[in-house]
Amino acid sequence: MHFASDNSGPVHPQILQALTEANSGYAMGYGDDAQMETLRQTLRELFEAPDAVIYLVATGTAANSLALATLSQPYQTVFCSSVAHIHEDECNAPEFFSGGAKLTLVPGGDKMTPQALRNSIEGEETRGVHGPQRGPVAISQVTERGSVYSLDELQALCAVAAEFDLPVHLDGARFANAMVSLGCTPAEMSWKAGVDAVSFGGTKNGCMGVEAVIFFDPKHAWEFELRRKRGAHLFSKNRYLAAQMLGYLKDGLWLDNARNANANCDYLAEGLRKAGAEFLHSPDANMIFASLPRATHQKAFAAGASYHLWDGSLEGPEDALVGARYVCDWSIGHDQIDQLLALL
Amino acid sequence: MHFASDNSGPVHPQILQALTEANSGYAMGYGDDAQMETLRQTLRELFEAPDAVIYLVATGTAANSLALATLSQPYQTVFCSSVAHIHEDECNAPEFFSGGAKLTLVPGGDKMTPQALRNSIEGEETRGVHGPQRGPVAISQVTERGSVYSLDELQALCAVAAEFDLPVHLDGARFANAMVSLGCTPAEMSWKAGVDAVSFGGTKNGCMGVEAVIFFDPKHAWEFELRRKRGAHLFSKNRYLAAQMLGYLKDGLWLDNARNANANCDYLAEGLRKAGAEFLHSPDANMIFASLPRATHQKAFAAGASYHLWDGSLEGPEDALVGARYVCDWSIGHDQIDQLLALL
Amino acid sequence: MHFASDNSGPVHPQILQALTEANSGYAMGYGDDAQMETLRQTLRELFEAPDAVIYLVATGTAANSLALATLSQPYQTVFCSSVAHIHEDECNAPEFFSGGAKLTLVPGGDKMTPQALRNSIEGEETRGVHGPQRGPVAISQVTERGSVYSLDELQALCAVAAEFDLPVHLDGARFANAMVSLGCTPAEMSWKAGVDAVSFGGTKNGCMGVEAVIFFDPKHAWEFELRRKRGAHLFSKNRYLAAQMLGYLKDGLWLDNARNANANCDYLAEGLRKAGAEFLHSPDANMIFASLPRATHQKAFAAGASYHLWDGSLEGPEDALVGARYVCDWSIGHDQIDQLLALL
Amino acid sequence: MHFASDNSGPVHPQILQALTEANSGYAMGYGDDAQMETLRQTLRELFEAPDAVIYLVATGTAANSLALATLSQPYQTVFCSSVAHIHEDECNAPEFFSGGAKLTLVPGGDKMTPQALRNSIEGEETRGVHGPQRGPVAISQVTERGSVYSLDELQALCAVAAEFDLPVHLDGARFANAMVSLGCTPAEMSWKAGVDAVSFGGTKNGCMGVEAVIFFDPKHAWEFELRRKRGAHLFSKNRYLAAQMLGYLKDGLWLDNARNANANCDYLAEGLRKAGAEFLHSPDANMIFASLPRATHQKAFAAGASYHLWDGSLEGPEDALVGARYVCDWSIGHDQIDQLLALL
Repeated sequence: MHFASDNSGPVHPQILQALTEANSGYAMGYGDDAQMETLRQTLRELFEAPDAVIYLVATGTAANSLALATLSQPYQTVFCSSVAHIHEDECNAPEFFSGGAKLTLVPGGDKMTPQALRNSIEGEETRGVHGPQRGPVAISQVTERGSVYSLDELQALCAVAAEFDLPVHLDGARFANAMVSLGCTPAEMSWKAGVDAVSFGGTKNGCMGVEAVIFFDPKHAWEFELRRKRGAHLFSKNRYLAAQMLGYLKDGLWLDNARNANANCDYLAEGLRKAGAEFLHSPDANMIFASLPRATHQKAFAAGASYHLWDGSLEGPEDALVGARYVCDWSIGHDQIDQLLALL
Repeated sequence: MHFASDNSGPVHPQILQALTEANSGYAMGYGDDAQMETLRQTLRELFEAPDAVIYLVATGTAANSLALATLSQPYQTVFCSSVAHIHEDECNAPEFFSGGAKLTLVPGGDKMTPQALRNSIEGEETRGVHGPQRGPVAISQVTERGSVYSLDELQALCAVAAEFDLPVHLDGARFANAMVSLGCTPAEMSWKAGVDAVSFGGTKNGCMGVEAVIFFDPKHAWEFELRRKRGAHLFSKNRYLAAQMLGYLKDGLWLDNARNANANCDYLAEGLRKAGAEFLHSPDANMIFASLPRATHQKAFAAGASYHLWDGSLEGPEDALVGARYVCDWSIGHDQIDQLLALL
Repeated sequence: MHFASDNSGPVHPQILQALTEANSGYAMGYGDDAQMETLRQTLRELFEAPDAVIYLVATGTAANSLALATLSQPYQTVFCSSVAHIHEDECNAPEFFSGGAKLTLVPGGDKMTPQALRNSIEGEETRGVHGPQRGPVAISQVTERGSVYSLDELQALCAVAAEFDLPVHLDGARFANAMVSLGCTPAEMSWKAGVDAVSFGGTKNGCMGVEAVIFFDPKHAWEFELRRKRGAHLFSKNRYLAAQMLGYLKDGLWLDNARNANANCDYLAEGLRKAGAEFLHSPDANMIFASLPRATHQKAFAAGASYHLWDGSLEGPEDALVGARYVCDWSIGHDQIDQLLALL
Repeated sequence: MHFASDNSGPVHPQILQALTEANSGYAMGYGDDAQMETLRQTLRELFEAPDAVIYLVATGTAANSLALATLSQPYQTVFCSSVAHIHEDECNAPEFFSGGAKLTLVPGGDKMTPQALRNSIEGEETRGVHGPQRGPVAISQVTERGSVYSLDELQALCAVAAEFDLPVHLDGARFANAMVSLGCTPAEMSWKAGVDAVSFGGTKNGCMGVEAVIFFDPKHAWEFELRRKRGAHLFSKNRYLAAQMLGYLKDGLWLDNARNANANCDYLAEGLRKAGAEFLHSPDANMIFASLPRATHQKAFAAGASYHLWDGSLEGPEDALVGARYVCDWSIGHDQIDQLLALL
């Protein structure tokens, strides 16, 4: 009953297999390997973006921070949701990599609305040289609370950014889960909607530790490479990052994994709903934020379930509602979910 | 005939095997996994340092930069060899992670002498608040030119640092190769000699991508953790870093790999010597810097050999001497060396 | 009719006179001059703080940023009002000087309440290494909206900080105006209330460009000196900063100037009140934020008045209320105020 | 007998007078004052550069660091003399403001030669993404050892930079002293020679604390303004910086002061030469580096002379040569020099 995170499950066997197959003979380091070249072509085709430049790093924070640093200046501010991963869970990494840029938290909760984004942007640069300047817009898709922006919503946010001539970064740590949820193409959920750069996640969906950073405009290439090296995120044995990502993309594994996770999440959500849970956010992909009586959580934890209590602890009145986060990773199955639901 | 780098060879099968074995079930992320706990104990025993704190990152640059940032202040300067990796090959990563500290290059070539180090240290802090303040001493063992400091030399450098109350960092990207060369213990080559923090390399000696950072004084623990996270070098699936390192240490594989590399390097050096090569540095571990006539290099490259020309190119007078770097990784064998030597 | 800012008026003649008197013969640079030594003693006595260390810089942003950088770490967050000068008007200087620390905006408007501050502090460090760590609390006295914390309020905020063992910085760009408003001593409004470091402003109250940074604990001394030099804020001809500040403190000029500004502000507030203005904040010192019909502003501007419209412009419906900021500097007099009021 | 520094003397009365005259009525802050506008026109005419953008800061370190930060990227290296002020006397300010760029010290002593500069530039960017990238060339005129590059030398250095498409910054803390020494125009010693940005010093030549930063290409304007504000170097009461600089330029005072300092330096050099001093560098402007027997220094210091011993102390064998630095500021006269020479 492991619903703590989509990074606590194992690596998908097909990806381990790809690592094993890559492990023969010599390969040039630092991205000049043959697998990386194949991966570049594969991702360019997938994204219908022949000019895109593509880089690999091993953590989502690295992907986000390096992409944002490349798109921003240190005297600017990045517009993001007030619960964005880059704000809450990266220990000032975006500020560090950008050289001290600020994050402006768009009010209104998990999902940004175009109007709230516009208000935030208009609220900056009202003081000339005294305040931070407007910088990139950062969107998380899937959001931090498990919701997914529709393509219309995504386009509307990007349109606001474009009005002010600001670049857009998409934190796609759960890119596949969002795409499967929307039933769209990679291009539709990125450059066709107005996105300039994507963190294309692999780690949370079955890889060992690999994220691609994709810029649709190649002008960012060399600066990104230098920032990646300077940030100590250039791997000498890059072929093992490329192999993971190739194994992940092969035969649609990435989509299968995401479909599996999302479907199991639906199944769990249905069960929780029946058990009377109150949903705090729309569970559009593979994460559920829901409240249940404390007694239920006590029972589940006692039985060995693993997930995060979101706004409270196991101690207190038994009938009080306590929010929890349940994440379904690619490897979860009905058996574990049924086991959990049986406890509710 | 691959002598380009010790990061271009494959991962040792035992380490891949360890990854495969680690790939089962759920594990807490970010270093709270069982393998990491085992690894901590293993390394503490190996280093005879029960209080040491131990962290994993995936690149040598990350290990060095994060360790130095933890040991320094942004208004200080780090003392290092003028050809140190942190100076020449990390694209300003130490400056970035430290918040703008300087590197003071100790004159005199690859290996620092205690006297040259002392002169450099004494040369700083002569201007009060106007110049940078004295910061950590950074030693590479194996050096960038393939030499190894004797324990006496290491102790002498550390003694100079201690006189000025400066911490010492050891860049041990090739820690095993140096240790095997000296025939000493890990403790002798680190804290017993006066070293405060070590980058303990795995990647160049058969791992996929993992380096341990070891602080012998646990006071640095929490700051390092925060700097690692802020630097985007905390892995969610840390168990796969720990598994690599455990596989690397198991049954002395790390020493076997290093012994193999060093022995093959000796064998190659012997052959080069016979062929009339001039050695630019003492080949104490698994790297050789030597000069040969350009015609010899032309012949070798034409036959498919792979290594770096150090101070010249294939074009020019045939009889001119051109320096080259030959690196023996753990996987190289006599057959490849013989093949190369046959061309000389 | 100049109410635009307290930095647009002239330097008080007594301060210019002090500069002239300081302008004779040679003096050691960089703070080793005799006037600086006198100033140190003067401020230590004024603040009843014999161990305090005292430094001069020329801008308020430098004073705030350097003090906060000294009190914080780059992986921390600074707690401040959502309209603090350090957030809105320093173009990311605190982020820059601190090496990328974050600012956490305490909700609730201009003045922080102890409860809101506590909530914000408790909201951080809930994610271990993933989120920023708790850093200094930054209080503005006078606030950015012209209010003054009572000593009780100040103590209560500092008590919350102390509970979490966080240092407190006081942005006293208008220190004298606040002190005069409260009728308290410098010590009462700083260390006796629980403040660790003060930006003691001179520029806005009649100086040419000088602010003192005061740390009540001398342990911060050398780090601050290095950060000041590294930030390019160490003046070679420091005597002219010291002379300004001595001229400012001499014979209570600083208090006279502040009393004059505050009294004139009261007089203006009274007039505005009679004219039907709605006050947006309590005008406790020398600044007024008030709304008046647009037509009134149009008339005032047409007659040459100078002040900032806060939330609107001169164009629009004549009877709509438009907020404005009126600042009384030390040099303003009843004549100018009467002139303005006559237009309402 | 004050020869310690050109920042220990008084402010020239004409400049104090300019401050006094500026001290009337209200003026917009932050550079929007009338005096600044006049100054811009004055400097553009002086430099024959109608498109130049011009900013004021209060310290030389600020001028240098902000200019270099604007011309560089954090993954680059700045080429400078191994004794440059930006390397030795700014406590890592260039590294701080640039976000961690490196300084590459061109070998060969105080003055860079075109060949040594070329070698240094060619030595970088030989390692692709691994090493720092080539950044600006920084030239000090007057040099740190009191020498002056001829126009030919200056042009030759700039030509090397131009070959590699690198911008050139001129640290003109003693711009006037160099210009007077060469007998050239401001344009000849800057953009006509190939310089892109100048720190135009005032502080060392009679001002209280003001330096102009001049970019001949206006494309740098807005970035510089933001960096200056973020660095806390934007003065609210900018008119007092502008007034100093206007007073400095008025009726050729800046050239008179420099001529006076240089002439007195010649006079002192002549006297030292007669007294048997060995000159360590060519005293081309207002600084002398020369060796004299220790006994002479002992006598001079005992008599109250003030200057820096460069490579030794007052203690030791009496007849040993000890190097010293003598600086003549604008206010020094023959009487003090004669007094010093009488002691030799």
